[in-house]
Amino acid sequence: MIRLLLIIFSCLFVLSSSIGQSNASITVKRYSKVDAGYLMVLRQNDDLFEQLQNFARTEKIPSANFTGMGFVDITFGFFNFETKKYEPRDFKNVELVSMHGTIAWKNDSTSIHAHGVVADKTFQAFGGHILKGKVGTGSAEILITVHDKKFQRKKDESIGADVLSLD
Amino acid sequence: MIRLLLIIFSCLFVLSSSIGQSNASITVKRYSKVDAGYLMVLRQNDDLFEQLQNFARTEKIPSANFTGMGFVDITFGFFNFETKKYEPRDFKNVELVSMHGTIAWKNDSTSIHAHGVVADKTFQAFGGHILKGKVGTGSAEILITVHDKKFQRKKDESIGADVLSLD
Amino acid sequence: MIRLLLIIFSCLFVLSSSIGQSNASITVKRYSKVDAGYLMVLRQNDDLFEQLQNFARTEKIPSANFTGMGFVDITFGFFNFETKKYEPRDFKNVELVSMHGTIAWKNDSTSIHAHGVVADKTFQAFGGHILKGKVGTGSAEILITVHDKKFQRKKDESIGADVLSLD
Repeated sequence: MIRLLLIIFSCLFVLSSSIGQSNASITVKRYSKVDAGYLMVLRQNDDLFEQLQNFARTEKIPSANFTGMGFVDITFGFFNFETKKYEPRDFKNVELVSMHGTIAWKNDSTSIHAHGVVADKTFQAFGGHILKGKVGTGSAEILITVHDKKFQRKKDESIGADVLSLD
Repeated sequence: MIRLLLIIFSCLFVLSSSIGQSNASITVKRYSKVDAGYLMVLRQNDDLFEQLQNFARTEKIPSANFTGMGFVDITFGFFNFETKKYEPRDFKNVELVSMHGTIAWKNDSTSIHAHGVVADKTFQAFGGHILKGKVGTGSAEILITVHDKKFQRKKDESIGADVLSLD
Repeated sequence: MIRLLLIIFSCLFVLSSSIGQSNASITVKRYSKVDAGYLMVLRQNDDLFEQLQNFARTEKIPSANFTGMGFVDITFGFFNFETKKYEPRDFKNVELVSMHGTIAWKNDSTSIHAHGVVADKTFQAFGGHILKGKVGTGSAEILITVHDKKFQRKKDESIGADVLSLD
């Protein structure tokens, strides 16, 4: 009897896991090649930067610009020039009403720089440098414009921050 | 004498009507082909989505992304996941400081999804999912990037909202 | 002894000047050709419109759209339709979280029209028509999409403001 219950529970567990996973399933395409570059559509719980980085690695993207919108949980950071650290603030369940960013390189790693604007249910807008973000109960639509050149981010010592180098 | 006045009034009426119409006249081009796609310039009283839909139908656009700015009367909506309805709010005589959107398909109809940011005369910013909008005392400049693929919006049952499908 | 000190001070002065200059040096490239157009990266103290105008003149750009982000001091203006003047407001040390603009012509001069959204350290967002702006302690990354046609801005007498003409 106990054995039967264990089997039933195991089945239910496997079933619920697979339902939970189906959202983030690898079988759902996250981007598609278009004339202008790539159209990316992220799904609930997708991490914005992780997906952009996976994309850049998989497609061997030299560099890129992107614009987008969606529905997200996001963390903005404002750079404190005295402490040289970003002071963060979280925004949950907000519309991503604008996003602009670049994919470049910092040494041998992909380096993403993005700014966003979000709005809550009162429509008040907040914006900032994106530290991290993930898709909420909705999606994110991102258009990626690929460049044929590999650009590096290099520290500009006079300001203590990375700047995209065009050399 | 009364007949003369009537004739004068009629002339003035016809004249004023035609001046009023000249703005929305069909003779003013609303978009022009450019290397990157189409540059659209909307005029006072033009409906944003109507113009984008007319354009997509006329030019047989498979799918597209667009970005824009202008001066508008606009209605944002925030999706209430309990009622499954958008809660709307109007903003009148505001600068459209950012707009990002996609043109795709929902069954056999053109389906436009756009997010915007607006600012009033105090420069405070508001943003959201655009339910409708029309150009105010100014214009709207929109760059449309056309895709060679036809993308569909399909209901994602797990979140109860449409998601752009890349299949 | 005094002579020696004078020489040392002179050396230090020349050295500090050249370090100060290196930021705005003409030897640092401000833009690079990419498949989609040009990627522009502006540095501390660069004037947004001056750099865009220099670029347009140097590269003989017929017309263009641009999008961008960065860290800036900026002045927005809201058009007062009674006085026909822009009422300005300055925002200092703010993230430029979104910028959309067009490069066209007004008679024989380059004419730039741009809208921006900025956010301060509280992440509150403000937006408007950009009257002027310069890069703060950071940079500005701008993607410029070049059009093959030369578009003119012409006064629309019915609204008293310039509108981009597609004729």
